[in-house]
Amino acid sequence: MYSFKNDYSEGAHPRIMQALLDTNLDQTDGYGTDPHCERARALIREKIACPEADVHFLVGGTQANLTVVAAALRPYQAVVAAHTGHVCVHETGAIEATGHKVVAVPSPDGRLTPAMVEEACGLHTDEHMVQPKMVYISDSTEVGTLYRKAELEALHDTCRALGLYLFLDGARLSAALTAETNDLSLPDLARLCDVFYLGGTKCGALFGEAVVIVNDALKPDFRYLIKQRGGMLAKGRLLGIQFESLFEDGLYLELGARANRLGMRMKRAISESGFSFASDSYTNQQFAVLPDALVEALGGHYKFERNGKPDAGHTVVRFVTSWATDETAVERFAADLRRLASGAE
Amino acid sequence: MYSFKNDYSEGAHPRIMQALLDTNLDQTDGYGTDPHCERARALIREKIACPEADVHFLVGGTQANLTVVAAALRPYQAVVAAHTGHVCVHETGAIEATGHKVVAVPSPDGRLTPAMVEEACGLHTDEHMVQPKMVYISDSTEVGTLYRKAELEALHDTCRALGLYLFLDGARLSAALTAETNDLSLPDLARLCDVFYLGGTKCGALFGEAVVIVNDALKPDFRYLIKQRGGMLAKGRLLGIQFESLFEDGLYLELGARANRLGMRMKRAISESGFSFASDSYTNQQFAVLPDALVEALGGHYKFERNGKPDAGHTVVRFVTSWATDETAVERFAADLRRLASGAE
Amino acid sequence: MYSFKNDYSEGAHPRIMQALLDTNLDQTDGYGTDPHCERARALIREKIACPEADVHFLVGGTQANLTVVAAALRPYQAVVAAHTGHVCVHETGAIEATGHKVVAVPSPDGRLTPAMVEEACGLHTDEHMVQPKMVYISDSTEVGTLYRKAELEALHDTCRALGLYLFLDGARLSAALTAETNDLSLPDLARLCDVFYLGGTKCGALFGEAVVIVNDALKPDFRYLIKQRGGMLAKGRLLGIQFESLFEDGLYLELGARANRLGMRMKRAISESGFSFASDSYTNQQFAVLPDALVEALGGHYKFERNGKPDAGHTVVRFVTSWATDETAVERFAADLRRLASGAE
Amino acid sequence: MYSFKNDYSEGAHPRIMQALLDTNLDQTDGYGTDPHCERARALIREKIACPEADVHFLVGGTQANLTVVAAALRPYQAVVAAHTGHVCVHETGAIEATGHKVVAVPSPDGRLTPAMVEEACGLHTDEHMVQPKMVYISDSTEVGTLYRKAELEALHDTCRALGLYLFLDGARLSAALTAETNDLSLPDLARLCDVFYLGGTKCGALFGEAVVIVNDALKPDFRYLIKQRGGMLAKGRLLGIQFESLFEDGLYLELGARANRLGMRMKRAISESGFSFASDSYTNQQFAVLPDALVEALGGHYKFERNGKPDAGHTVVRFVTSWATDETAVERFAADLRRLASGAE
Repeated sequence: MYSFKNDYSEGAHPRIMQALLDTNLDQTDGYGTDPHCERARALIREKIACPEADVHFLVGGTQANLTVVAAALRPYQAVVAAHTGHVCVHETGAIEATGHKVVAVPSPDGRLTPAMVEEACGLHTDEHMVQPKMVYISDSTEVGTLYRKAELEALHDTCRALGLYLFLDGARLSAALTAETNDLSLPDLARLCDVFYLGGTKCGALFGEAVVIVNDALKPDFRYLIKQRGGMLAKGRLLGIQFESLFEDGLYLELGARANRLGMRMKRAISESGFSFASDSYTNQQFAVLPDALVEALGGHYKFERNGKPDAGHTVVRFVTSWATDETAVERFAADLRRLASGAE
Repeated sequence: MYSFKNDYSEGAHPRIMQALLDTNLDQTDGYGTDPHCERARALIREKIACPEADVHFLVGGTQANLTVVAAALRPYQAVVAAHTGHVCVHETGAIEATGHKVVAVPSPDGRLTPAMVEEACGLHTDEHMVQPKMVYISDSTEVGTLYRKAELEALHDTCRALGLYLFLDGARLSAALTAETNDLSLPDLARLCDVFYLGGTKCGALFGEAVVIVNDALKPDFRYLIKQRGGMLAKGRLLGIQFESLFEDGLYLELGARANRLGMRMKRAISESGFSFASDSYTNQQFAVLPDALVEALGGHYKFERNGKPDAGHTVVRFVTSWATDETAVERFAADLRRLASGAE
Repeated sequence: MYSFKNDYSEGAHPRIMQALLDTNLDQTDGYGTDPHCERARALIREKIACPEADVHFLVGGTQANLTVVAAALRPYQAVVAAHTGHVCVHETGAIEATGHKVVAVPSPDGRLTPAMVEEACGLHTDEHMVQPKMVYISDSTEVGTLYRKAELEALHDTCRALGLYLFLDGARLSAALTAETNDLSLPDLARLCDVFYLGGTKCGALFGEAVVIVNDALKPDFRYLIKQRGGMLAKGRLLGIQFESLFEDGLYLELGARANRLGMRMKRAISESGFSFASDSYTNQQFAVLPDALVEALGGHYKFERNGKPDAGHTVVRFVTSWATDETAVERFAADLRRLASGAE
Repeated sequence: MYSFKNDYSEGAHPRIMQALLDTNLDQTDGYGTDPHCERARALIREKIACPEADVHFLVGGTQANLTVVAAALRPYQAVVAAHTGHVCVHETGAIEATGHKVVAVPSPDGRLTPAMVEEACGLHTDEHMVQPKMVYISDSTEVGTLYRKAELEALHDTCRALGLYLFLDGARLSAALTAETNDLSLPDLARLCDVFYLGGTKCGALFGEAVVIVNDALKPDFRYLIKQRGGMLAKGRLLGIQFESLFEDGLYLELGARANRLGMRMKRAISESGFSFASDSYTNQQFAVLPDALVEALGGHYKFERNGKPDAGHTVVRFVTSWATDETAVERFAADLRRLASGAE
């Protein structure tokens, strides 16, 4: 049974595994102070065209999110996020466990607009309410949508005007930046965000997220927060080595592009079989609205997530591809879908 | 320059690396629900002779400590620990960041006794003070000492009598259980502790600590805490595979024994050169009291930690060996020490 | 300028002031262990017909809310509340500062229904999300509405079925229980809630909320939480004396009834002048929808809160009466409103 | 049975009660924004000769401590305090519940010296440990001792040099500043501390602590913290009125002086009966070392706290006087002590 359940079903890209093997018995200092981390930091600073950025490597996304928020906010300050945001729903209250409220803004497509941010801030007027201080967005979003450059610039301007930090969760950034409708670049992110991260877990690494801090106000003592929240990996070299591999040539974006290509192939297959989508995604996540009977039938051959029921007879199904997805499995899926959708089974 | 700085300078034991390679492109479900984690749990339950224990895999020690404490205690409850305990000093206030006080008890050798625990509890008498509810110990301790079985039994009895949970940090448990003066076994730990963990990071794994929950009161919803505190690894299989390798045969204890053997070789060398120790360790950590000039000279050839100055002319130096330590480096160190100590340089 | 801004503009009912004076130089033990607190607890237990309830006195509402939540929930558990609930918006993230998420449920009238609670719980399915464990309601609500007995019974049943604690914020309970549409009694609350409180601040006291814990699971060590969160008043007697005065005869409900009577007088005046209301309140809070020009004009004579703009030309104005409201001021308001509304000014 | 148990056994000074009565039915805005609070703030700023200080009124000491710490520190920063400090032992982990570690420094007499602070900071060297950022002291201390001006200046200098905030808990400040050995003034405190508070609870008020923030870095948004931690009193006027009474003429220091005078009378009585003291106090708290039999006998006539046993036959007894202590009770105590000590009973 082939899995389209998520983009972290397999291990790491073979070049990463090889790099880990090659350096396995070298001795390095711990906690991210080794030469691999140093070099990975330098490579990332170069790719984002921001030589003064601080770069820290953390193990996972929830850990990165809670550490950034804990570092950035005073106790009464809050994060504004789309109601679909990972920090809102899928982190078991990790942000609240750091003491901070997440102000959830209903969003039709997983994205925040300046108007939404302004409205949320407008509702918080005095010391009887939390003080919004950070805007959290993800690119690609949890429903596969993307920010255009003009949109991110507008959000950036709104954040500046309102005194808010702009934090971009890039767990799926390699997919976002290589989607056919994308016009953002890594240097754009460094120019427009106060802090963001480059996700490794969902893009070829065993694990790892590279947190990039651009705003000087957020830089001091960040390592204290990493350590305190349990995110400081003893063998930090593991993170350094992986991000070296991803960024020493074009591997990071190459893998995102591959994931997207296969995702778009599935999108085409779903479309051609006459089905619609719950969101308009050009990335490696596709959210198809399928008849329940078809979902049932597909479930006998493929693993995937069911994401709610828009009506009595249909289910939203999430199909995810990745750098590791088997192209022949995608083609088999397309054929199976065509067959099953036409009622041949 | 060879490093005796710690036991996490290298990557993973080759058998672990091979297992990771062999399974690299298999598809598995995320978050520790895969078959490797299941099998590793079963292997550990068998080795500890406690079929009903819950086993959870976390990435690192600070993360394991803070997650266990956050799961076990109500907000006003406290952890009693030796003042040298990892949770007291070397976790950047990770426990306090979960809201809990660590009641630090001065200990001459890194260990807690029933009398120390009773005294600490006796000082906390009403609702104006925190309520001690958990005893935290480590084996081997941060200064290389060990608990004897009778001592752990006595602590267990004290904890039962006072209504305290007994939590053993086993970051260096493989070394502890294979030291020549040890008489504790894995089943003893499951019998005497409410919760403990088997450290992987310092014993052959890339990373990973296996938290074993024996007390039923501590079992419910532990996975919620792991997720909330950022410790739930997406590719949980990485932890499962590593602990499978460590526990499917005797690798875990074998590696601890090797680390100890080399540590004791260094101890002998230091002793034979006429130096004493800050603590009496039979494990892979040795704390030598050396003349400053010698420390300086050794520092030109080896990396190690300086742990304080007992007097104006001496420094406590920590030498650590591991499963990966090069035996020839140890012999070279012994020779260098002999030479340098006799003033030949 | 007369104030209808809130129900805590004045000091305490004269009988309370007298009681404080009469006992001013008596010596009593601190922290709520004095005979006044004991007697006040006994009086409350009697009025709620629940001899085994625990009663604790706290200074204010936000303090009571955060202490109850911190005492009741494990770290990953959440409170379900109407989006208008005090804990959602007007406590500066006090609940989140205890580490807990408030799951805000959109509610048309400030109340929660079983269906809303069930839906909120249905959306939280596994350890990647918070676990709803408590339902927070207020009676009267923040918009002046009330729970009928049948509605509270239904909520109680839903909470039992779903394993949730039912927590009722009674900051305005004296008004709620004496409204003409109310059919709940104090014993009903003790029967149907796991924990609730009887508000004193807004009903004749200088300050003080009496937290009543009915569910045995929530009783242990509550005083530890009070102390830890800064709510344990040194001169606890002040709380005891005030609640003695409120509950030794019918003063508590008598004052609520008076506040409601004056509130209803204002409602009638507003109605008779042809204006509508943002919520249907039979209590001491009235939310009138008034033309902006009228609001402006009234603002020259009276203090009140503006609670949003339903459309370009209107404002929702909150008028609040209390035990201390001057009846002649209410009549003057009615006359002024009639005059101003008819365009006479 | 007369109580020397603490300095909060009675209500408020009659002038305060009268002021509360006189203003009882005036209408004022809530949450500390009323004219009484404004005037009290102005009076305090004048007395401390620091016109630009921020002054906030909180209800109690633990609340004040936890709010100041939560406002001042980033998550990984710690408070250095004497091991006898109120924040260390008698606040049920209130500071830890805000996420911060209290670094407890053993102190022979309840006071901190620059050397102690320097040593504590010297032990915290990198991001694996908390970062000391605030020094907490109390004057008078929990054992009745005092800081001399030169000592406070030295601490101030040390804090400046090390980048630490100096926070003085003045729960018993009126006693401290009026002790015969004191040479500190209110303006000295404003000059030497970053933040401190003037305790009302133990000096004539029903309750209340006036937090004075001198350092601009600690001023922003402090009211958010007050509200979030449950310390914002709805009828804030109660605090304003009380502090007006205490500071509009010399009442505050006058009451402290009276408490001290009676405390010194008891000290003389104890001395003259041949007993020694656990600490050298010139304030309203006296810590006598008495034979157990005498303690037993006195316990039949007076209430007091037992504070530990220095040896098998003796107990440390704390006797506390206050603004409200009955002078004849003190004389009776002196006589009883003389009689009981001479074995007449």
